[in-house]
Amino acid sequence: MLAIIGGGQLARMMEQAAVALAVPVRLLAEGPDVSAAQVARDPMVGDYRDLDTLRAVAKDCAVVTFDHEHVPPEHLRTLQSEGHACRPGPHALLYAQDKGEMRRRLAALSVPCPESALVSSAVEAEAFASTVGGFPIVLKAPRGGYDGKGVWLVGSRAQAAEALTAGGPLLAERRVDFVRELSALVARSPSGQVAVYPVAESRQVEGICTEVVVPAPQLAAQTHLAAQEIAMRVAAELDVVGILAVELFETADGTVLVNELAMRPHNTGHWSIDGAITSQFENHLRAVLDLPLGAPQARAPWTVMVNILGGEVGHLYDGYAHVFARDPGIKVHLYGKQARPGRKLGHVTAYGDDLADVLERARHAAGWFSGEIEDGEA
Amino acid sequence: MLAIIGGGQLARMMEQAAVALAVPVRLLAEGPDVSAAQVARDPMVGDYRDLDTLRAVAKDCAVVTFDHEHVPPEHLRTLQSEGHACRPGPHALLYAQDKGEMRRRLAALSVPCPESALVSSAVEAEAFASTVGGFPIVLKAPRGGYDGKGVWLVGSRAQAAEALTAGGPLLAERRVDFVRELSALVARSPSGQVAVYPVAESRQVEGICTEVVVPAPQLAAQTHLAAQEIAMRVAAELDVVGILAVELFETADGTVLVNELAMRPHNTGHWSIDGAITSQFENHLRAVLDLPLGAPQARAPWTVMVNILGGEVGHLYDGYAHVFARDPGIKVHLYGKQARPGRKLGHVTAYGDDLADVLERARHAAGWFSGEIEDGEA
Repeated sequence: MLAIIGGGQLARMMEQAAVALAVPVRLLAEGPDVSAAQVARDPMVGDYRDLDTLRAVAKDCAVVTFDHEHVPPEHLRTLQSEGHACRPGPHALLYAQDKGEMRRRLAALSVPCPESALVSSAVEAEAFASTVGGFPIVLKAPRGGYDGKGVWLVGSRAQAAEALTAGGPLLAERRVDFVRELSALVARSPSGQVAVYPVAESRQVEGICTEVVVPAPQLAAQTHLAAQEIAMRVAAELDVVGILAVELFETADGTVLVNELAMRPHNTGHWSIDGAITSQFENHLRAVLDLPLGAPQARAPWTVMVNILGGEVGHLYDGYAHVFARDPGIKVHLYGKQARPGRKLGHVTAYGDDLADVLERARHAAGWFSGEIEDGEA
Repeated sequence: MLAIIGGGQLARMMEQAAVALAVPVRLLAEGPDVSAAQVARDPMVGDYRDLDTLRAVAKDCAVVTFDHEHVPPEHLRTLQSEGHACRPGPHALLYAQDKGEMRRRLAALSVPCPESALVSSAVEAEAFASTVGGFPIVLKAPRGGYDGKGVWLVGSRAQAAEALTAGGPLLAERRVDFVRELSALVARSPSGQVAVYPVAESRQVEGICTEVVVPAPQLAAQTHLAAQEIAMRVAAELDVVGILAVELFETADGTVLVNELAMRPHNTGHWSIDGAITSQFENHLRAVLDLPLGAPQARAPWTVMVNILGGEVGHLYDGYAHVFARDPGIKVHLYGKQARPGRKLGHVTAYGDDLADVLERARHAAGWFSGEIEDGEA
């Protein structure tokens, strides 16, 4: 039995992979009807911050894994001391939980990152800015941010002071003049085997990933390799077990710098369900169960994943008639979530030989579900 | 909400497809821990032969579909009269439930079939035999047979009498001198759209499907087309909604004759989960929900599915270490069933450019799980 902590769409897609492998799953969900709980047998409902709840979920489970990185590390250490393998473990998760720790550790490993420093005041922020060519700089909450939340682009000492009103310290970083964002995804098993996915280009709008193209178009072979090597090195050095996603900035000269780490299946890997020989969800399960990993190669020359984001209007289930009639090859994944503006409600995947065609198909389908495309444009 | 009657592996794989589409499923299972019940939220347990049980399952479900063809047709007619769409409907299921009715109807449609007649005595069997060149002939129980059960090859009047001791009438058929068995699979929606899968070669041992090769190797283009046309015609004439599998005999001269019909996802279509753009399970759901169908084309030049049959020894979960280490591209599906000799416990799928290689990979993996390959042969 495998315990999965957290009931979001990542757990839901892990469950799908677990069905094929006949791996029994015990889910701890935030509520009885959250995304993963809808499709799990006998989901448990409770608070992942409560140790006794975690103990109840982990009972009889040799391995515990996660939908998110927010489980308190002290609880994970307790579970480990009681005989449950937590994968990834708290010693690794720390670097996905705390951006300050992550920057410190990656710097010690000489992994290329933007310059950064922890700052507790506007004066410290300004002092940091002066070392990287002045404002604007980026300030980030070391913990708890996601999808652009907890990140501020600040252009002055006054703006830095404003960002710091909620308390510090914050992580100050050079504002990288990047040409695009890349994602290097690896699965790593406890025995050290790694499966490396092709590097993806990830496109964001207001800090939220909107679409992913695999492989990253016109990426120089050496940059592709550099990104994969960073992901493999970080996974090994931090002893990550499961999926590690390394979000990277690519600069104009082809340098890659680490932006963020995630230690779980990642939005930039959703393409792999329909687009790779082995999905990131199956490889996450195989990794945490210490089974040999599956081939991560893409099955088509181009794969595009576009997120379905909640809009003011929008179709979900009622979008199928149009989307499926227009494109018999489109793959749709809905997460069973209630629509809210900006919320990730699902994704679509298209693949094929012609990138322009694949992009158009995936964008049209996702745009229809999101309500960005009206009937007249269909 | 979609009701699925029956908790076998076909329902389990339908549920997997339903997760991606976020179609809520209510399952009626034979027991709390049968294959599909293990991975369903709140499965109902009960007897599909009981009308009130069916009514309870169908409540709030616009559409009812099936893991098997054994639900009493009078109950389905009642459900329909109470506002539930049964897909396929009882008027179509009849021809999958009763081989005598099937032969009569296909003959009326001039669909090529082996000569047949209902016989109630050994004398009638012998009289039929004399019209098709003499014994041996095939006798079949019109109802309830599967996987070779309820089928007798009889070489004499005495053997016919023996087969008839359990009662008659039986369906007598010419023993077809076939070179191989083919399977033509279509999905059909209530509005009449069809999606036609490439014709598969199905290999049987003692009446049980053991492996499926797609497309059927060295199949003449006109035979391929003839098989697909038969499947489309039968689906339309019988008003099948969902997947229809037409099992065919191919004779030495390239003629195809209908052997059996199945009106549900079929073992000869399991390859489509990993091998086709849209799996038979997703297209079954899309068909019964009257959504436009997905592309049925194969994604690789060759796809091979091999069943994992229960053996005396054999590995299931403990087979992963070897199978996955040997072949990172193999796809494994286990059904969560207890091993019994000859029972279908799962299947493996391999795909690629080289048929010999793909066959070897799939056979090795399935043979390992089944226990047909011992450690020394690995």
